[in-house]
Amino acid sequence: MKSYLELTATEMQEQLDAAQAQYQDYVAKGLKLNMARGKPSPQQLDLSMPLLDTVSAQTSADILREGTADDLRNYGGLIGTPEARELMATIMGVDAADVIVCGNSSLNIMYDLVSQVYAHGIAGQPAWAKLDAPVKFLCPVPGYDRHFALTESFGIEMIPVPLGADGPDMDLVEDLVSKDPAIKGIWCVPKYSNPTGTTYSDEVVSRFAALKPAAADFRIYWDNAYAVHDLQQPGDSLLSIKDACEAANNADLWYMFASTSKITFAGSGISAVAASDVNLAEIKGRLTLQTIGPDKLNQLRHSLFLPDADAVGAHMQKHADIVAPKFETVLRTLEAGLEGTKVGTWTRPAGGYFISFMGLPGTARRVISLAKDAGMILTEAGATYPYGDDTEDVNIRLAPTYPDVDEIADASELFVICVKIASLEALMA
Amino acid sequence: MKSYLELTATEMQEQLDAAQAQYQDYVAKGLKLNMARGKPSPQQLDLSMPLLDTVSAQTSADILREGTADDLRNYGGLIGTPEARELMATIMGVDAADVIVCGNSSLNIMYDLVSQVYAHGIAGQPAWAKLDAPVKFLCPVPGYDRHFALTESFGIEMIPVPLGADGPDMDLVEDLVSKDPAIKGIWCVPKYSNPTGTTYSDEVVSRFAALKPAAADFRIYWDNAYAVHDLQQPGDSLLSIKDACEAANNADLWYMFASTSKITFAGSGISAVAASDVNLAEIKGRLTLQTIGPDKLNQLRHSLFLPDADAVGAHMQKHADIVAPKFETVLRTLEAGLEGTKVGTWTRPAGGYFISFMGLPGTARRVISLAKDAGMILTEAGATYPYGDDTEDVNIRLAPTYPDVDEIADASELFVICVKIASLEALMA
Repeated sequence: MKSYLELTATEMQEQLDAAQAQYQDYVAKGLKLNMARGKPSPQQLDLSMPLLDTVSAQTSADILREGTADDLRNYGGLIGTPEARELMATIMGVDAADVIVCGNSSLNIMYDLVSQVYAHGIAGQPAWAKLDAPVKFLCPVPGYDRHFALTESFGIEMIPVPLGADGPDMDLVEDLVSKDPAIKGIWCVPKYSNPTGTTYSDEVVSRFAALKPAAADFRIYWDNAYAVHDLQQPGDSLLSIKDACEAANNADLWYMFASTSKITFAGSGISAVAASDVNLAEIKGRLTLQTIGPDKLNQLRHSLFLPDADAVGAHMQKHADIVAPKFETVLRTLEAGLEGTKVGTWTRPAGGYFISFMGLPGTARRVISLAKDAGMILTEAGATYPYGDDTEDVNIRLAPTYPDVDEIADASELFVICVKIASLEALMA
Repeated sequence: MKSYLELTATEMQEQLDAAQAQYQDYVAKGLKLNMARGKPSPQQLDLSMPLLDTVSAQTSADILREGTADDLRNYGGLIGTPEARELMATIMGVDAADVIVCGNSSLNIMYDLVSQVYAHGIAGQPAWAKLDAPVKFLCPVPGYDRHFALTESFGIEMIPVPLGADGPDMDLVEDLVSKDPAIKGIWCVPKYSNPTGTTYSDEVVSRFAALKPAAADFRIYWDNAYAVHDLQQPGDSLLSIKDACEAANNADLWYMFASTSKITFAGSGISAVAASDVNLAEIKGRLTLQTIGPDKLNQLRHSLFLPDADAVGAHMQKHADIVAPKFETVLRTLEAGLEGTKVGTWTRPAGGYFISFMGLPGTARRVISLAKDAGMILTEAGATYPYGDDTEDVNIRLAPTYPDVDEIADASELFVICVKIASLEALMA
């Protein structure tokens, strides 16, 4: 296709007229489409229905004790069952001893950790609440809106850092982190990043591990949400932040988070935090004030349903069989409709839950608004930036997992049409 | 039995010799006893095994949606399923609209609420973290050690308030709360209080509701942990703090907490917070930053297993059938061994999980230590007081639910012997 940037005014008008006609056809269809929801489809959830039968009224007392002295139905087990810790360690690429398994939400773990550092401090450093100047976090952009929302709620100043094809701009990260003791953290989704699908390169991970932060309580908040969420084989490989930090004599620099929300049930999975011995002891010391223990029966369901790495791999392949065709549909439609037009670029992730679209400056809001008027919900404009501030108004997050393939086909077509209209309008303005 | 206080020195020595002989018999038995664990016995947990079968791989999609548009297996449902809210409202004596249902731990809700007020403030008041002087909480004593531990962890100063037969000393509470704006809360276990088993009288609840706190962000933290945990029928009745506060034009003065930890599974129940519309909106606003939603499948299990008040009542009767004989064994043994000796008083709760023993000043530690040396674990001395400070060294919490009746019989006998020895030693010193 010809670059829209090289069209004459007349050609632009022709293209716009054509796109608007197609748009009106979609409006007339009265579709209800949604590419905003980063959640598993019912078909994916169906894959885990056998998990519900792993623990039943007939389950023996032996299994309900998992070989320990503790009745999993009762109080206790603050750091999770040994088997659940093993499972989450397998998913996270660490050792079971590095892991505390919690409830159904890794976001909750992240929130609580920030909250605890805010109120109580870590590593012998003052609580952030007691500091005169605001704490700052680095936020690779585009990124995950819930990271930003929770960070903002603690009055933490968010500094955007561009996310490239290999990960965050590490020159910038190194420079900022080494100079400013107010910078206490960075949010990373290192594999199949939300929304770009980026997996950090080995070099980027190594540079993270070698950071020399000005703040003693600076930590890398490593949200490994998509650790096993490959859409093709082999999937992207991610260097171990734990190993890299240990090798760089920075053993305590990282916290890692994960959950089975997009492995088993999004509402009823299990979540975990992994960290160094020192960090884990600190987390555990505070956790004991917060709860008597997690839901260990749900941990048991998970460790029985996914007993080892092979079981996880086979299960994730079933997810990929459902999700990959949806991603392919979006990508094929974008290519067919926009390749060569130079009005946008998009990512082609090998895993995860999102495709990130970068349009011409000043077009993202218009695309989202056009889509809405034609019955399609897209992720809110700016959602992938701290404070919702996509200054150039370029990024749109596409979430292809939830709708079925037919809906995805319609949604992608409509999306292309909206991009064409918004881009031509911008070029002609 | 004769009052030990009136014995001659010779009589005391005779009694002490006899008690020490009995004590040595127990030591020789090499028993392993534990009356420290405030948790349900395996037999109680067995009562809820059918709950595990309420949701299975065969459960229909209709039920997994509970009549709403939302798939309970997926993300969302921040405030809980309608049916789980109804269940917890039934247990808590409020309306479903007053309730947010969370994960498996009401302690976690309490911790998070204190944490959020600390970090963010409520009711337009400053965050406690930003205040110059420490916040203070009133703590009825003896009370629940985990309330105290979490409060202390935020640097909140705890002021003990004596708990009488009808509830806390309300003259003192009214005086302190009305004068000191640093007092921001009071911990209450209003029914079958831990450890005394006290249920607050209607007058006490009404006086709570009519408080005129100096602090606009003062709240009553009403931990209704034993709302339906009657050991006899009729159980104690507790006036509704919600209704009382509304009647007193103090609608926002209370937060209520409860869980099914001691109804279904102590590790795998559901928990809830209830509050006024204004308070609930504030809680919900913060919860949305912390999590995408609770484990709704476990909520579904609970609402299917306990569909209405009758089901809850019938289920709790089964608990009472198991637990009441244990309480009776302790009480019968205390009466047989200590009635009339004037070396101790104890509570005779109509429900809950504990019996509270008040010995002669300076004897509680000694009793606990003697018991330990004979193979019996009792709740740590001082645990029922803020900062572990039972200044007079008098209170011991007895937890009869977990051991079986035979163990309880041994444990109670041994306890009586230890009390006799410690008391006589004190009287003879």
